[in-house]
Amino acid sequence: MSHDLTKKVAPSAATLGTDLCIRVYYEDTDAGGVVYYANYLKFFERGRTEWLRSLGIDQRELAAQEAIMFVVTQANIEYQRPAHLDDQIDITTHITELGAASISFEQSAQCDGMQRARGRFKVCVVHAQTFKPTRLPLSLRTLLEQARN
Amino acid sequence: MSHDLTKKVAPSAATLGTDLCIRVYYEDTDAGGVVYYANYLKFFERGRTEWLRSLGIDQRELAAQEAIMFVVTQANIEYQRPAHLDDQIDITTHITELGAASISFEQSAQCDGMQRARGRFKVCVVHAQTFKPTRLPLSLRTLLEQARN
Amino acid sequence: MSHDLTKKVAPSAATLGTDLCIRVYYEDTDAGGVVYYANYLKFFERGRTEWLRSLGIDQRELAAQEAIMFVVTQANIEYQRPAHLDDQIDITTHITELGAASISFEQSAQCDGMQRARGRFKVCVVHAQTFKPTRLPLSLRTLLEQARN
Amino acid sequence: MSHDLTKKVAPSAATLGTDLCIRVYYEDTDAGGVVYYANYLKFFERGRTEWLRSLGIDQRELAAQEAIMFVVTQANIEYQRPAHLDDQIDITTHITELGAASISFEQSAQCDGMQRARGRFKVCVVHAQTFKPTRLPLSLRTLLEQARN
Repeated sequence: MSHDLTKKVAPSAATLGTDLCIRVYYEDTDAGGVVYYANYLKFFERGRTEWLRSLGIDQRELAAQEAIMFVVTQANIEYQRPAHLDDQIDITTHITELGAASISFEQSAQCDGMQRARGRFKVCVVHAQTFKPTRLPLSLRTLLEQARN
Repeated sequence: MSHDLTKKVAPSAATLGTDLCIRVYYEDTDAGGVVYYANYLKFFERGRTEWLRSLGIDQRELAAQEAIMFVVTQANIEYQRPAHLDDQIDITTHITELGAASISFEQSAQCDGMQRARGRFKVCVVHAQTFKPTRLPLSLRTLLEQARN
Repeated sequence: MSHDLTKKVAPSAATLGTDLCIRVYYEDTDAGGVVYYANYLKFFERGRTEWLRSLGIDQRELAAQEAIMFVVTQANIEYQRPAHLDDQIDITTHITELGAASISFEQSAQCDGMQRARGRFKVCVVHAQTFKPTRLPLSLRTLLEQARN
Repeated sequence: MSHDLTKKVAPSAATLGTDLCIRVYYEDTDAGGVVYYANYLKFFERGRTEWLRSLGIDQRELAAQEAIMFVVTQANIEYQRPAHLDDQIDITTHITELGAASISFEQSAQCDGMQRARGRFKVCVVHAQTFKPTRLPLSLRTLLEQARN
């Protein structure tokens, strides 16, 4: 992995769980008056993307330069309380496991101090064209291990 | 529950797992060239909706007349293989458990004879305004039990 | 353009405006209780895709074999009346103009005999990688002209 | 209209066109590798919402307290250049016309100094339940006129 992909960023914020704050717009809601259940997967992905970015990991560059993509292979979501239009949702992201070719995340969506949804995701590292599993590049692995500890 | 909500429909098709066939459009895909992972939750919900409709259960009428809504409280999805633009995805829906105020579904998304994703969902019955758990109305319960056996 | 891309299909249905019927699910609605305004662009694209398919034009094959993509460059939508959960929306698609490297469509979204939205779209033919405008291949052009008349 | 809905905010930023910066995630892209055309309508709505919020106008409170909603009745979008994954898109919002029961907006989506899309929207003020056109409340009108000049 090239240096361009691992910009020097102190991993301390990520260690603590980087927060991403998401505003709920009409596009996120449904006729039940609440955030549509599939949209939490969008929110959680935004959270993982910004968490990776805070470590200096840029997924577009990974795809272009290393032909590596992250693909979710398992998603487990618990919905506790609905969120509504104009709510501000805080996404917290933690890494829970680091395999040879996979990363496991635990994420939370909170609003006004109450959890709305919780997600656990297994993300596999695959080749961008063939979608075949690929080992995590060492430089990437080192960054993620630092963020985990 | 009124008769209008439980139109006479033979539950045999639902017992066997009603298929819904979904065409993949550009809106469903992402820059990875495959169906975006959150969109399987849309597909699975379309599948559950049509499965319920095949039993004569109309969710809009349930909300308007009985103030009852179905809310997903747990979603577990495994992604096996990607699906692509123009693919035709078959959604199969089965009921696996029937609680006092909840229904559990197992669903599959197949294309060209290969499973792309599998979903298990726990759906709770709630009051349409308060979102508080509500017991399944007896007539609805009877329909679902027939479909299960 | 290869024969595979222009399967023999009688263009008579397309001439009259092929209807696509779309069911409204929760994913399509917003907290206002109606179909979210951006989703009509999804519905209209599904309508254009099926209209093209009815002429034997497969956009995935066009991209893979001819490196040709259709890209919307202008969209004008008028929203007349809201549509709701469970509504069945009929999409009608007509071709109004055929340029050297563009196609203009007029489309309607109707439900219960009343127009909900009307869309006019200019679609340009571009190279799939460079996104540069490309002339309509002759075989494609012939098909579209037959459908127009 | 209550004071709660018109928090004291200096309208100078809005006059100049408030910028909203939007990051492009996988959810926003399609298999063509670019931002899906319907998603610009989501971006433009986020822009209008934040522009209104910068004037102290809260759409959720308007719906709850005044039974007033904003509904788009006309949308005209020109797509100039594609935007890609991870791009940062600046949305600029201007008011171009103020009717008795409508507001017209002109909006731009820029990235790296180049316009990607331009949108013109006519938004009508309607009753939140009946969707019937309603005159702009005077306090709202005053705020919008100040922002326009």
